[in-house]
Amino acid sequence: MKMLKELAALVGGTVVGDGEVEIHRVAGIDGAAPGDITFLSNPRYQPLLQTTRASAVMVKPGVEAAGVNLLVCPNPYLAFAKVLTALHVTPPEFRGVMEGAWVDPEATLGERVTVYPGCFVGKHVKIGSGTTLYPGVVLYDSVEVGEGCLIHAGVVVREGCRIGNRVIIQPKAVVGSDGFGFAPDGEGYYKIPQVGIVVVEDDVEIGANTCLDRAALGVTSVGRGCKIDNLVQVAHNVKIGTDTIIVAQVGIAGSTEIGRHCTLGGQVGVAGHIKIGDNVMAGAQSGIAGSLDSNGVYSGSPAIPHRDWLRASKNFAKLPEMRKEISRLKRQLEELQELIKEG
Amino acid sequence: MKMLKELAALVGGTVVGDGEVEIHRVAGIDGAAPGDITFLSNPRYQPLLQTTRASAVMVKPGVEAAGVNLLVCPNPYLAFAKVLTALHVTPPEFRGVMEGAWVDPEATLGERVTVYPGCFVGKHVKIGSGTTLYPGVVLYDSVEVGEGCLIHAGVVVREGCRIGNRVIIQPKAVVGSDGFGFAPDGEGYYKIPQVGIVVVEDDVEIGANTCLDRAALGVTSVGRGCKIDNLVQVAHNVKIGTDTIIVAQVGIAGSTEIGRHCTLGGQVGVAGHIKIGDNVMAGAQSGIAGSLDSNGVYSGSPAIPHRDWLRASKNFAKLPEMRKEISRLKRQLEELQELIKEG
Amino acid sequence: MKMLKELAALVGGTVVGDGEVEIHRVAGIDGAAPGDITFLSNPRYQPLLQTTRASAVMVKPGVEAAGVNLLVCPNPYLAFAKVLTALHVTPPEFRGVMEGAWVDPEATLGERVTVYPGCFVGKHVKIGSGTTLYPGVVLYDSVEVGEGCLIHAGVVVREGCRIGNRVIIQPKAVVGSDGFGFAPDGEGYYKIPQVGIVVVEDDVEIGANTCLDRAALGVTSVGRGCKIDNLVQVAHNVKIGTDTIIVAQVGIAGSTEIGRHCTLGGQVGVAGHIKIGDNVMAGAQSGIAGSLDSNGVYSGSPAIPHRDWLRASKNFAKLPEMRKEISRLKRQLEELQELIKEG
Repeated sequence: MKMLKELAALVGGTVVGDGEVEIHRVAGIDGAAPGDITFLSNPRYQPLLQTTRASAVMVKPGVEAAGVNLLVCPNPYLAFAKVLTALHVTPPEFRGVMEGAWVDPEATLGERVTVYPGCFVGKHVKIGSGTTLYPGVVLYDSVEVGEGCLIHAGVVVREGCRIGNRVIIQPKAVVGSDGFGFAPDGEGYYKIPQVGIVVVEDDVEIGANTCLDRAALGVTSVGRGCKIDNLVQVAHNVKIGTDTIIVAQVGIAGSTEIGRHCTLGGQVGVAGHIKIGDNVMAGAQSGIAGSLDSNGVYSGSPAIPHRDWLRASKNFAKLPEMRKEISRLKRQLEELQELIKEG
Repeated sequence: MKMLKELAALVGGTVVGDGEVEIHRVAGIDGAAPGDITFLSNPRYQPLLQTTRASAVMVKPGVEAAGVNLLVCPNPYLAFAKVLTALHVTPPEFRGVMEGAWVDPEATLGERVTVYPGCFVGKHVKIGSGTTLYPGVVLYDSVEVGEGCLIHAGVVVREGCRIGNRVIIQPKAVVGSDGFGFAPDGEGYYKIPQVGIVVVEDDVEIGANTCLDRAALGVTSVGRGCKIDNLVQVAHNVKIGTDTIIVAQVGIAGSTEIGRHCTLGGQVGVAGHIKIGDNVMAGAQSGIAGSLDSNGVYSGSPAIPHRDWLRASKNFAKLPEMRKEISRLKRQLEELQELIKEG
Repeated sequence: MKMLKELAALVGGTVVGDGEVEIHRVAGIDGAAPGDITFLSNPRYQPLLQTTRASAVMVKPGVEAAGVNLLVCPNPYLAFAKVLTALHVTPPEFRGVMEGAWVDPEATLGERVTVYPGCFVGKHVKIGSGTTLYPGVVLYDSVEVGEGCLIHAGVVVREGCRIGNRVIIQPKAVVGSDGFGFAPDGEGYYKIPQVGIVVVEDDVEIGANTCLDRAALGVTSVGRGCKIDNLVQVAHNVKIGTDTIIVAQVGIAGSTEIGRHCTLGGQVGVAGHIKIGDNVMAGAQSGIAGSLDSNGVYSGSPAIPHRDWLRASKNFAKLPEMRKEISRLKRQLEELQELIKEG
């Protein structure tokens, strides 16, 4: 529980109404009850302000509502996230190394590290203080995991890979699987050993069942603050800049570099050995076949500027009609030519 | 082993021939041997009826074959499934809570629950009777799993999620991973805690390595009887209606609602915050960008009515030719205009 | 450490320079230091030969560089792979059946098999000599795994499936999950039991989080030498020929046959019940809707010959302009017709 004025201090907002009201929970605006705080995300829901039973509502500056306690904040979406954290998130319980966990004697664990049953922590592994390994996490030899990380159930980090601080890895993600490299040897393929690693910097989140392949030589890297969704494939030697967002089921082929503050929509494919600048956005399902400068928005497969793609896509269904029209024009033109010749 | 007449009773069919013949196995029509039952799925394979060594064949009404024992049934495909179940499926062995499984003392297990080694069952978990957890299943605190479920190896269900009765979850699926929600805070992103849950209703099947994200607030839900294939992404707050089929590698973005009896083909992408009606079919690889009414068939990315897409796709390869033709027409028309002016 | 002449013998190359120089490591050409061997993959990097600090460089025949030790070999990429293996790869440590592993008394293990903690090896499982199961591997009853395999952490192989010799399975892959088969029974769907198996032949590699579904009846098979990347879906009863390459996030629908020496690019989708010949290449994100003869290159969704697709794709963005042009031509032609009539 927090008083409304405490939440205001937390989010840098101001209270209009009763700052002492007790807030227990965050709820959607229509389902909220007394003790709840809710938020007005969309101005068209403003009439709901008059009927909500919530004890307080987070709003943008300029919104007014008599008889309702308001928490006015410049960025209500961010405020919502912070209030949600304050009211609903409890730090994971500290339970130490639990029975049924295997921790190699040559591993080094910081203070207040929790290792659940079924985990395997290999030789020379280092785990920073306050980190939690949920059940079934496997850290191969010489892995390093920073402080304050949440490594969810069944995550595997293979040998030598390095995870920064405050990293969250959702269940079953794989860090450091072999890159996909084979040299044709005449008949079949000879495996190119993948002797590099993966480096995941601070404050990254990695989604469930996502795969980050280790480099052939050197490093596959995910920059500070990146957020990677579920079922994403990051191939060997890829480098991803800081604060880039990668939505579910994206695939990035080998040795490609992606800049800072990019957003790749769901199911995007990015070719190998190319370079994407900063602040690039790629629409869902697009296929990026070549390098792209900074600051563009792209869609389609192969990807083209988003506006061009939108316009072209609208005409796609007209193709059969266009083709008929061309035939018709051709015939009419021939008739006309005939007519003129004869004339 | 069953006698043919027993199988007939099971599937609501009638025997033409010897109902007492013993059936041990289901086999394909060309590989079948005495003791086998097989099925005629496609009328063009009817000649094989004369040469099959099977002891019986499941057929539609109207098929005749002298000297072959027939099991005539209105829906041979459904009958095949039922006979296969009767002859080949044995219920999983009851083994209780096995050594090497971790079950919290505050968990509640029904009768005849099997928990294999390497499983983790957290605090306040409830498991219904007859349910089997294969090795390495992890149920976080307060998870509820119904009766008669098969939870295959390595499945993870995160805190508070609820699984109905007779649910089958293939290996490594993840239920309740955090939804992908972040609020920009100027420089980078602030994590929006995902404090909702996932509810999976009765008789659902979930494929291997599929991810169902927990809601930000509230519930992500999968309706009764839905079948979800492998490597599917279901984002936070998605609602899927009953008996909907979702083929492998589909991705459904956040807060989208999908109706009843829909079929989404392989690798389909569905945008967030939209609503798909009932009985909608989407062709493989299509991208559904906006809401769709009930009862349509769609393809393409962005998706358009399937027939339009088929016709347009056939013309796609003609684009270069069409463009040349347009240039040619333009030139000829100009020449003609010139000619007429001069004339 | 190897002497350069030893590496030359290994790769079938010849030394130009000092064959006795000691090589400890493989490195990229610009980061290489004394003791390193590097390689010249691209002729345009040839100037770097003059400045590299590497002790030796692998090159194609015809490349010359005074003062640099060269290892001349017909296929430097293959030589690179072999040298990398010789210098950097150590066989996995033999550790036997470790504490915390569950091995059924009715399982049969060959010599020098390592089973890490958290593994589960079911009844009647057979494991060939020299195979390693990393932590958390689950082999259901009656699975067979050949000799010299590396089965990485968290891999699940379900009942009865067979893995050949020298197979590498990256973490969390699933072999033998149920195929996706349901018979409509009026209202909903009835599960078709999947009673077949998966057979993975010798020298196959399977990527992280990839799923190979068991057959409904019979066998899903992956031919000798195939390399399958991460997050790939192979549905029930699919047959893949030898030495075929399947890149990340490909999906292959049920009962499809794929030939030998094919390459399917990332995120390709292949429809069910079709047949792809040998030596077929499919570009990334393409959708193969029908059977294809051997020896073609295809792209697009639906897939068409790659060259046609390239040409058509270049014109896609011109669609709006083309449509306007057609309207303009139509108008002008009508004016002309009018003019001639009047004339």
